[in-house]
Amino acid sequence: MTAALQKSTAVLAAIDGGASKTILRLLTPDGVVLGEGRSGPANVATDPDQACASIEAALRDALIAAQLQRHDIGREGLRVYAGAGVAGAEVAGRAAVIRDAFPDFAALVTRTDAYTSCLGAHGGKDGAVVAIGTGSVGYAISGDQSHRVGGWGFPQGDEGGGAWIGLQAVRHVLHCHDGREPKTDLFQRIWAKLDQDGTGDPLGWAIGASASRFATLTPIVISASHDRDQVASKILHDAAKEIANISSTLLKNKPFLHLPLSILGGLAPILLPYLPETTKKLIVAPKGDALDGAASLARKAWMKQEELFQGP
Amino acid sequence: MTAALQKSTAVLAAIDGGASKTILRLLTPDGVVLGEGRSGPANVATDPDQACASIEAALRDALIAAQLQRHDIGREGLRVYAGAGVAGAEVAGRAAVIRDAFPDFAALVTRTDAYTSCLGAHGGKDGAVVAIGTGSVGYAISGDQSHRVGGWGFPQGDEGGGAWIGLQAVRHVLHCHDGREPKTDLFQRIWAKLDQDGTGDPLGWAIGASASRFATLTPIVISASHDRDQVASKILHDAAKEIANISSTLLKNKPFLHLPLSILGGLAPILLPYLPETTKKLIVAPKGDALDGAASLARKAWMKQEELFQGP
Repeated sequence: MTAALQKSTAVLAAIDGGASKTILRLLTPDGVVLGEGRSGPANVATDPDQACASIEAALRDALIAAQLQRHDIGREGLRVYAGAGVAGAEVAGRAAVIRDAFPDFAALVTRTDAYTSCLGAHGGKDGAVVAIGTGSVGYAISGDQSHRVGGWGFPQGDEGGGAWIGLQAVRHVLHCHDGREPKTDLFQRIWAKLDQDGTGDPLGWAIGASASRFATLTPIVISASHDRDQVASKILHDAAKEIANISSTLLKNKPFLHLPLSILGGLAPILLPYLPETTKKLIVAPKGDALDGAASLARKAWMKQEELFQGP
Repeated sequence: MTAALQKSTAVLAAIDGGASKTILRLLTPDGVVLGEGRSGPANVATDPDQACASIEAALRDALIAAQLQRHDIGREGLRVYAGAGVAGAEVAGRAAVIRDAFPDFAALVTRTDAYTSCLGAHGGKDGAVVAIGTGSVGYAISGDQSHRVGGWGFPQGDEGGGAWIGLQAVRHVLHCHDGREPKTDLFQRIWAKLDQDGTGDPLGWAIGASASRFATLTPIVISASHDRDQVASKILHDAAKEIANISSTLLKNKPFLHLPLSILGGLAPILLPYLPETTKKLIVAPKGDALDGAASLARKAWMKQEELFQGP
C-alpha cells in the first residue's frame, strides 16, 4: 500500500460509465488520487453484462496503478466506497445489477451519467446542466429531487445534438437534389463528404445510418456556417433554440427555479453564442466533470457509513 | 398450354417487387391473364440475391397457375417479355443484376416500383404520382424523362408518410413527459399504446425502432384527429404540407408541368382532404396499379421485338 493509504483503509472509487468508454478513479477520502483505469463502453440499459465487465476491467487497471491487489477489497481488508454515473441507469432495476456485480464493495451508489455530470459541474451542490455531444440531455438536481429533459435517443429525441444537426444537413442535401430547395454551398460540401465516404451512392449514405454517422457531418455544418452559408447558420440557430428550450423547461418549475446552469459537451462552445440572453445569464462555468460528480457520490456513501461506525 | 396461349407463343410477365412482397402476373399480349404468383420481398438495393429469388419463386407459382412448365421458357419455346418494377432499382447496376438472373427471358425491362406505379396509375401514359404508405415518394414520367422527389428513406426522408407521422407523435409524447409541451389527449392515447407494447418502458419504446414500428402509431394519430385533438390534427396538416411540397416540386419544371397527378397508398384518402386546392385541382383517380404499369412495360418490350421480327 502507498503512503497515502496508510492513514485509512477506506478508498473511494469514482466511476464514469458512458456509451463509448468507462473511467474508474481510486482516491482517498481526502481527495488524493491513487490510480485511474480505463476500459470499454458501459451502457447498462443496452448491455448490462458488458457494463459490469467494463467497470471490472477499469477497476483492475486502477488497482495496478494504485499498487493495490484485487483480493485486498472486502470487508476485512480495503473498504471501497464507490459512486457510479452509468449510461442507462434510469431503467428500472439496472442500478441493482451493477450493485450485485460488486458484492465486495462496502458501498456502490449508481445514478445516470447525466446525474454525475450535473453533480460534477456544480461541485456536488444543486444545479442544472445541458450536455451536447452526439446527443443532448438536460438534467437538474435540487436536494433529493432531480429532473431530466430530453436525451430520449435519436431520431425521436436528442434535439440540437450532433446527430440531429447532421440529420438536418442530410435532409437539406436530399431536398436540394430532388428540387425542393435551391442548391447551396452547404449542399456542395456535404455532398462531397457523402460521395467520398465509400458507400458508392451519396443518396443512399443515410439509409440505416447510426446517430454517430449523422454526427460526423456536424463539423462540415460548423465550417460552412463560419463561411456564412445561410442554411448552415440556420441549422445551428435551430439547434440552439432546442437547447434553450431544454434549458428553460429544466428550470421552469419549483424546486428547480433559478438554479445555476452549465452547458457541457463538445458542442457547448459552438452553440453557446447562439443562445438567447435569458439563457446565457444563468450560465456558469462547470467546476468539474462526471468523474468528479461520481467521486462526490462515493464520498457521500463513505460519510454515511462513517457516521454509522462513529455513532451520533 | 391453355386455349389463350395457342394463338401465340409470346407471353408477358408483369412483376411488382416491393420491400415486403413480390407479385408476378403472366398474361397474353392482348391482356388475358394466364396466372399469378406471389412471394417474399424484392428490394434489389438492399438484397439483390433475395430479390431475384423472390421473382423466381413468384414466377414458378404463376407458371403453375397458368399450366405452363418452367423449361418451356426459352428461345425455342415460350418467349417471355417481362416488365418489372422493383424497389431499389435506381441504384446503379441493379437492373442488370435482375436481367442476368433470367437469361431465358426474351426481354426483361426493370425500373423502380415508383416508375411502374406511375405508369399504372396513368394507363401507360405520361403523369405523376405521390405514393404515401409507411414512406412517401413522388414520381413523374414525361416521355423518356422521369423525375423523383422524396422517398430517400427514414428518418432523413419519406416526409408525410406513416413512419414520419408516428415519429412526430413520439416526439410530442416525450416533450409532454419531460415538460416541454402540455399533456394532450393524443399524449394519453400514444402513451397507452407504448405502455402496452411490452418493451417494459414507454420512454424506451422508440430506441432503435424501425420505420414500420413508428408507422404503427399512425392510426392512433388519425383517430385522435377525428376526435378533434389539435396536436394530432396539426401533425396530419404538416404531413399534407410535405405531400403538397413533393407534388408541386414534381410538377414545377418542364417537361413535367401540368401532368395529371394521382395520390396513391394507404394514407392517400386520409391526407387528401388536407391538401391545398391548387394541388387538389391536378388530382385524377388512378387507372391501375404497379402491376398494370409493369404489364405495359412488358408490352412495350414485346412490341419492340415484334417490330424487329416483322420489319418496318
